[in-house]
Order: sequence, then C-alpha cells, then structure tokens
Amino acid sequence: MVLLRRLLGDVLRERRRSQGRTLREVSSTARVSLGYLSEVERGQKEASSELLGSICEALDVPMSEVLREVSDNLALAEEVSSVAVDAPVAPSRLEVSNLAA
Amino acid sequence: MVLLRRLLGDVLRERRRSQGRTLREVSSTARVSLGYLSEVERGQKEASSELLGSICEALDVPMSEVLREVSDNLALAEEVSSVAVDAPVAPSRLEVSNLAA
Repeated sequence: MVLLRRLLGDVLRERRRSQGRTLREVSSTARVSLGYLSEVERGQKEASSELLGSICEALDVPMSEVLREVSDNLALAEEVSSVAVDAPVAPSRLEVSNLAA
Repeated sequence: MVLLRRLLGDVLRERRRSQGRTLREVSSTARVSLGYLSEVERGQKEASSELLGSICEALDVPMSEVLREVSDNLALAEEVSSVAVDAPVAPSRLEVSNLAA
C-alpha cells in the first residue's frame, strides 16, 4: 500500500529544499519542533491538519498545491503498482526477485 | 485555517453516500471501527495513512482521486478565505460583523 504520509513528506521536503531553507528555519517559522518536521518529511509521522497548515504557511505554499502534487505523485504510484500486479512476469524473473527479497 | 481532515471527511462521506452504502458496511469492509469511520467523516479524527488507504479500498476509489477532490475543494476554500481577507469592507458592514461576532 502506498502511504500518504511518505508522499506528503517527500513533497514538503522538496519544497523546503527548493527554497534553500533548513529544517531549523522552517520548523521555527511553523512553530513545530525540528524533530517533528524531520519525521514528517521522512514519512515517519502523520502530520495533523493543524500542523500541516502551519508547515505550508511557513513554506508560503497553498496547502491545495501541496495536496495536488501529492495526488499527482500518488496517481503515478498507483499506476505503477497496478502494472506490477497485472503484468505477466516470466518465471525466471520471478525467481530472481524472490531470491533477492 | 481550513483543516484538511474536514475536507477529507466530507469527500469520503460523499463518496460513501453516492454509493448508497452505510457506515457499518464500509467500516466492516475497511476493517476499521464504525465509530472511527464516523469520526473521520465528520472531520473529528485524523485518518492515519494506513486506515485512509483501507477506507479508499473499501470504497473502491483510488486514494489519488480522493486527494484530488480534496485539493480542488481546498483550492476553492483558500480562494474564498483570501477574498474575505483582501476585500474592502464598508465601515458600517465591518461594525455590524464586529457586533455579531
């Protein structure tokens, strides 16, 4: 299952980095702890609606834009995972991937 | 601040109702408690990524589609609230709304 918090964390981190800002700076502006923001960005913690709002404000990006990007990435991930489930796999490839797992 | 969980709850409830399904049925399929689903739909509880995934699966709707709809509704809400902040308000109207608040 594709997890929303992972994709959301990726988008938030990418936005922050593209602005050349540090975790410390954004967490301070958003009034969340640095550890919390770091965990959210790594997809390890669910962001509450309130804190997600604060983080988006601190990044000066509308929450709708962040969610739109997450939704687009999620659509791609869903497509990939449905292809992975539906596609026929040659036995040798399957064995290799089983061995690798 | 517009809260993500409210908009998400609205979309999930609307999807369920448009399928003519009950809370009991969807919560059972999603393997979440009826109370939990009800609170999520009313925007009173944050849905974890895992349980949001289960609810979307139970509704047979891609999570990306739900998020897209939430993002669209959020964009509208953001527009309305920015208009409310930016729009010039006649003093008399302002006084009335202050009195009413």
